[in-house]
Amino acid sequence: MSTHHRQANEFVQRMLRSRSIEQAEHDLSPSPRDGPQKIPGGSLLTDEAIRKRYEVIANADQIKELLLDDWTDHRKKTYEHNIENFIGTVKLPVGLAGPLRINGLCAHGDFYLPLATTEAALVASYSRGCQTITEAGGCTAMLLNEGLSRAPGFVFEGLKEAGSFLIWVINQLDAFRKVAEDTTRYGKLIDMSISVEGNHVYLVFEFTTGDAAGQNMITIASQAICDYIMKNSPVKPKTCFVEANLSGDKKASAASFVSVRGKKVTAEVTLSKDLVQHRLHTTPSQMCDYWRMSAMGAILSGTMGVQGHFANGLAALYIACGQDAACVAESAVGTTRMEVTADGWLYTAVTLPNLIVGTVGGGTMLPTQKACLDILKLSGPGHAQALAEVCASMALAGELSIIAALSCGHFTRAHERRTRSRNNGHARS
Amino acid sequence: MSTHHRQANEFVQRMLRSRSIEQAEHDLSPSPRDGPQKIPGGSLLTDEAIRKRYEVIANADQIKELLLDDWTDHRKKTYEHNIENFIGTVKLPVGLAGPLRINGLCAHGDFYLPLATTEAALVASYSRGCQTITEAGGCTAMLLNEGLSRAPGFVFEGLKEAGSFLIWVINQLDAFRKVAEDTTRYGKLIDMSISVEGNHVYLVFEFTTGDAAGQNMITIASQAICDYIMKNSPVKPKTCFVEANLSGDKKASAASFVSVRGKKVTAEVTLSKDLVQHRLHTTPSQMCDYWRMSAMGAILSGTMGVQGHFANGLAALYIACGQDAACVAESAVGTTRMEVTADGWLYTAVTLPNLIVGTVGGGTMLPTQKACLDILKLSGPGHAQALAEVCASMALAGELSIIAALSCGHFTRAHERRTRSRNNGHARS
Amino acid sequence: MSTHHRQANEFVQRMLRSRSIEQAEHDLSPSPRDGPQKIPGGSLLTDEAIRKRYEVIANADQIKELLLDDWTDHRKKTYEHNIENFIGTVKLPVGLAGPLRINGLCAHGDFYLPLATTEAALVASYSRGCQTITEAGGCTAMLLNEGLSRAPGFVFEGLKEAGSFLIWVINQLDAFRKVAEDTTRYGKLIDMSISVEGNHVYLVFEFTTGDAAGQNMITIASQAICDYIMKNSPVKPKTCFVEANLSGDKKASAASFVSVRGKKVTAEVTLSKDLVQHRLHTTPSQMCDYWRMSAMGAILSGTMGVQGHFANGLAALYIACGQDAACVAESAVGTTRMEVTADGWLYTAVTLPNLIVGTVGGGTMLPTQKACLDILKLSGPGHAQALAEVCASMALAGELSIIAALSCGHFTRAHERRTRSRNNGHARS
Amino acid sequence: MSTHHRQANEFVQRMLRSRSIEQAEHDLSPSPRDGPQKIPGGSLLTDEAIRKRYEVIANADQIKELLLDDWTDHRKKTYEHNIENFIGTVKLPVGLAGPLRINGLCAHGDFYLPLATTEAALVASYSRGCQTITEAGGCTAMLLNEGLSRAPGFVFEGLKEAGSFLIWVINQLDAFRKVAEDTTRYGKLIDMSISVEGNHVYLVFEFTTGDAAGQNMITIASQAICDYIMKNSPVKPKTCFVEANLSGDKKASAASFVSVRGKKVTAEVTLSKDLVQHRLHTTPSQMCDYWRMSAMGAILSGTMGVQGHFANGLAALYIACGQDAACVAESAVGTTRMEVTADGWLYTAVTLPNLIVGTVGGGTMLPTQKACLDILKLSGPGHAQALAEVCASMALAGELSIIAALSCGHFTRAHERRTRSRNNGHARS
Repeated sequence: MSTHHRQANEFVQRMLRSRSIEQAEHDLSPSPRDGPQKIPGGSLLTDEAIRKRYEVIANADQIKELLLDDWTDHRKKTYEHNIENFIGTVKLPVGLAGPLRINGLCAHGDFYLPLATTEAALVASYSRGCQTITEAGGCTAMLLNEGLSRAPGFVFEGLKEAGSFLIWVINQLDAFRKVAEDTTRYGKLIDMSISVEGNHVYLVFEFTTGDAAGQNMITIASQAICDYIMKNSPVKPKTCFVEANLSGDKKASAASFVSVRGKKVTAEVTLSKDLVQHRLHTTPSQMCDYWRMSAMGAILSGTMGVQGHFANGLAALYIACGQDAACVAESAVGTTRMEVTADGWLYTAVTLPNLIVGTVGGGTMLPTQKACLDILKLSGPGHAQALAEVCASMALAGELSIIAALSCGHFTRAHERRTRSRNNGHARS
Repeated sequence: MSTHHRQANEFVQRMLRSRSIEQAEHDLSPSPRDGPQKIPGGSLLTDEAIRKRYEVIANADQIKELLLDDWTDHRKKTYEHNIENFIGTVKLPVGLAGPLRINGLCAHGDFYLPLATTEAALVASYSRGCQTITEAGGCTAMLLNEGLSRAPGFVFEGLKEAGSFLIWVINQLDAFRKVAEDTTRYGKLIDMSISVEGNHVYLVFEFTTGDAAGQNMITIASQAICDYIMKNSPVKPKTCFVEANLSGDKKASAASFVSVRGKKVTAEVTLSKDLVQHRLHTTPSQMCDYWRMSAMGAILSGTMGVQGHFANGLAALYIACGQDAACVAESAVGTTRMEVTADGWLYTAVTLPNLIVGTVGGGTMLPTQKACLDILKLSGPGHAQALAEVCASMALAGELSIIAALSCGHFTRAHERRTRSRNNGHARS
Repeated sequence: MSTHHRQANEFVQRMLRSRSIEQAEHDLSPSPRDGPQKIPGGSLLTDEAIRKRYEVIANADQIKELLLDDWTDHRKKTYEHNIENFIGTVKLPVGLAGPLRINGLCAHGDFYLPLATTEAALVASYSRGCQTITEAGGCTAMLLNEGLSRAPGFVFEGLKEAGSFLIWVINQLDAFRKVAEDTTRYGKLIDMSISVEGNHVYLVFEFTTGDAAGQNMITIASQAICDYIMKNSPVKPKTCFVEANLSGDKKASAASFVSVRGKKVTAEVTLSKDLVQHRLHTTPSQMCDYWRMSAMGAILSGTMGVQGHFANGLAALYIACGQDAACVAESAVGTTRMEVTADGWLYTAVTLPNLIVGTVGGGTMLPTQKACLDILKLSGPGHAQALAEVCASMALAGELSIIAALSCGHFTRAHERRTRSRNNGHARS
Repeated sequence: MSTHHRQANEFVQRMLRSRSIEQAEHDLSPSPRDGPQKIPGGSLLTDEAIRKRYEVIANADQIKELLLDDWTDHRKKTYEHNIENFIGTVKLPVGLAGPLRINGLCAHGDFYLPLATTEAALVASYSRGCQTITEAGGCTAMLLNEGLSRAPGFVFEGLKEAGSFLIWVINQLDAFRKVAEDTTRYGKLIDMSISVEGNHVYLVFEFTTGDAAGQNMITIASQAICDYIMKNSPVKPKTCFVEANLSGDKKASAASFVSVRGKKVTAEVTLSKDLVQHRLHTTPSQMCDYWRMSAMGAILSGTMGVQGHFANGLAALYIACGQDAACVAESAVGTTRMEVTADGWLYTAVTLPNLIVGTVGGGTMLPTQKACLDILKLSGPGHAQALAEVCASMALAGELSIIAALSCGHFTRAHERRTRSRNNGHARS
């Protein structure tokens, strides 16, 4: 996180243009003056509670009109279990990308993807990729594995005690499964790994979570296991934490990348030279040249995996479909690979090992979010695996489109065109 | 990305319960049957164009009613430059967290944070952290650096040509600055680095982007530089790509993490033992014990930096405030550090080197998004640096709250309570 | 791998001081003039073969005298299976560090460590750490896991074929074990994982290797499995590579770090405040302050794990004891953790997941290398696990010593003193 | 660092075969019995001192005869400044690889590489790569940058003080340069970067170090800067550490990988189809297919960069030539890239950003180490840059040879042949 001294100097000069050093030092000091107004009402959704919340906001009237429009006001109870300190809704435009033909283990047919984004050109670019895949007869998608982990941490006096605990714990999986599954109808404890670092022991529990993304479900199940351990272990841990930050929750991690977190899917498609030329305005060989240089670029920059812009499509689909958008931090890793086949076609594969998706729970039952899942025909139980294959297939479409554009110099033009005159010219400004 | 053979086997058995191998093989084959319906109307926002788009969706009526409500329908033109194939809006509930007192270089005063999320307990948890900080007189926040990079790639015959190009290019910064700044009123080319890998040369241009996040702005500026290079370089590159995937755009990368991408901010607060006890129901020493074990957990899992859940707050604030939610992939990295001071207080610092935020451009002028920025009093020009300090201070609040809960065993209970009975019991299911 | 343009410019100016651009361009061009002399004699160790090899070296007489001294010349046959194109031996000084008391699962007692290095202060520093541990009653060491992997890669037509292969291969472990173990008396195939990336399938075979480091052993065993697969798989792979670079061989990798490669060991010791003061001239609290800042430093710099200088001790012990020194690249990762206990003592733990050591095979039977293993009393069969615990305990000693020195400002002085006047003052020059 | 519960269980069973749980618990406990014998004599090299050291070793006679042979005994004073607690030398066999024609900025001509290793097939494999390059007219090599960093750490009361320090320190480079260069004739302070993480400030000083590797030189220079800061800074740091583990010393780090540490070199060669066929027994296209799959393998396993076995050659050359073998941990990272050119030839490039080499200081003046540098004609002042280019060119040779072997299935056979019957059959065992 270092800054070159010259850049630091220029930055400091810029910052000191609008404030003196004394002013800056004053600004940075604690200001224990009277406390500002608390936000009232907790998770209440009454008109009264909401009204009071707006009292803490300056010039609240226009803001309220926009966030708490009639549509939202009438449906506010639907948000009861998804938010606290509710004041209204933010509206994100949804565009449709597709059709995307998927020949998957779990997802079959032609899909239209609802993408919620405020970034110009994103929907158009993904849509172009989808159409190209569909013209080729669709992409193949294959769910490869699933599992979500929680990693409680235990502290012992020393290694000797940690070792004794280890000998006990490796034989407790059946007992753990029982107490875990007493807390949930859908979660199944499928595996356990153990990590010892001095007197610290981490247990990594892996669950399947039915059609829910499942983070809460497995927290509750893991807590039950922790309680069981604290009660039954012949060597009592000095401390127990239900999650000791080894599970990769809400962050890109090597451990999740090299195994699975959520759902792991791979997808591929082979495009003819003609189709690449006709639809993507470039050639398989130019695309592979770009892929090679951009793969090296990713490697030189030190990313997990190599890919172009998985995050763009995933964020847009996650938001539209009531998924946890924070999981983009962990889901947007993986690999893209391109090759020219012996007969000059373009082979492309993507692999995403950390898709965190569900079709029940979370935000999936909120009105517009459910509507977006309905566009995919993937709302409710039985569809989480298919949704994961849709995510990977969409990622494949996005990679094809952006790599095509970058390979032949169309990328800038596409963005220029789409954003032109936006916001009084800010895009070009 | 490996799967243990036994887990693979169990997974395959699960998958083959609902389909035969033959069925699976058939499902995975290309299906070049008749093409599905195209999505009509491009970026048109007329009633007619939208109506036609809904024709491709099955059972579109109820979906349309939800996505294309009256509020949205009346304002659809406002989305003109932010989306293509528009069909309506998705509504995300917004909760208010705070107040959060910030003593920053750029952000001063008490802030109420609009957070758009569908994850229960998130707003409540961040809000608790904010209030604790505020009671302590506020946190200190300091913007440390800013800069956004594009990395065009050039291919040469060999190293000899790459070397000659290098000798030329290191003296062209002034010329590049001129052509770059001809394309933008706000973007400034502030630096250039060079990376040679065999006959591949990457130029890393670094820009400041005024109050915009600025990705498009710098793409257009970099394209102008590329055009200039292709025209003027004494050694003509065989190929030029405007972005060769070295810039870290939309992904966590070591290169961005060890320098800056967007804005780099650090924030700190010191809490008395009493405040920790009273507000967070734990002790400085328990929190530090948790911090140590969770920092080791993050290290053992191989994350960039060490932190708890930056992604949660960032995703919620980015969505509410019209930021690019895909940038959560790159922004949600950094460090959290805790210490017990000599007099038993709790010192906590967070550092986020990759905040991609703007207060103009992107989605910041959309109605509800602007309203959310207005809640922060940070809408429009002049506020991007302050918004970055708000992000870091919010991250600090989030870390304090979650680490407190995890350190004393309250984490599970908080989630259990907040999500109870949601979606007919799915949260616990 | 970027270089700032200004630094690049200064560098180019430095380089062009001693050569013109034209000269440089000429120097960089292929020079297909007459070929130089080949090195004769292959792996022959006859006097004649060696004599001829020296003919290709200019001014060979003095060089020969040093490398092919009498001792070496008399024993040259002992190197027969360890080197090709033999010309003599290089002599590295060996220093003794210790005594190091280890209370391990496999290593018990007091050890004197033979360290081969040319870096001043290294032996003295490790020795200080060893003595401190010993005075405290020794460190505890625990082998946690072992296993060495090979990762053959298979290419298929597409995902469909890869999927069919997958279904077959997950049930072949017994067959693979049989063909693998037909090639080796000591190697055991203990596990298999599978990684699918589009039409690429990697099989990760994990072996125990008796008391050998075992890389060759498992290559041969994996080749036998590959041959079996190519002959028996119902879906014939288009290509098979015996190692597709997923195993982490000879490089630090996240996959090896998050599981095990070779042997994984953790070691710990608790030192009284008095011992820290008396032996290490600092305090537990100063050491922990340094540890915290240096752990954050490692995190900010993006290392795998966090530690100080595992590489120093490991390289020295590996070279002395006939281990594969190239494996330092993979072995020198792991974690160091320090804490002040409730009663003010210093708790320290190290964990090394990638120790590649053996007490048979490789260079372990060469005369001086075996002598060094004999100093440890760990030469020959039955000792590899103990050797791994010695490595981890040594690493613990090294961390204690360097962190102590850095925590109280003695580091520079120690190096200054040890290297003073070396090489006519070059150390300070 | 997790272990699957089943593997943990099997491992525990294996371990408990030879010891009871009670025995294990006893073994793991501190044993504060009488202290073992200290190692006498410090860094003395007298016969008496050495004799006494052997008294602590059991059965020392045969060991002494091997380590303290006459050749070593007569030259023991030459090791005076390179080792402590000296007891003799370990002898590593040296093989000659080459000839390797290098067309470099700094290294020109045909080189024979002295490689010290105990791993069969290594010299033969590198030698094959060298000869192939030479037949093609040599490889091109280009030093791209150099610089070695130390990163002192400073702790402040809080961000406000850290900020004030920052404003002062960014203007002190000239003063720092003066005090730094007062300590060294050869080291030059060329740059400074700053990293702020809460109240922690790291200064990253970058030096050139003449022809020495230079770690000690820059430690002493940095200490002088630290002393100057502690005396002159208007804001006194609470603590100062001369190295706070941000410099990447002795470990692979993203920060070093994305910039430079030591010397950064790239090297390339283009081989005709015939030469690949004739010398390497494979085709450019097969080699590229292997490269692609192995690059993906490296990415999936999470390495820094992508390469095959840089560590093998580097360790062998570093040991032979008196370099610091521990630096293999940081040097053995980088990239290998292969392409088939438009006319069917094979283009290959390697880039190594972290070569730590010197031709003065360290072990370079020891008798046999200097002899090895003399074989390269690179002993003494003026040759460090050329040595770095030799390292990169050697790495290129090694990659060509191993990738050729792996691409066509010859890898296993080569190792089988070279190691056959070694150590009474242990290689195959």
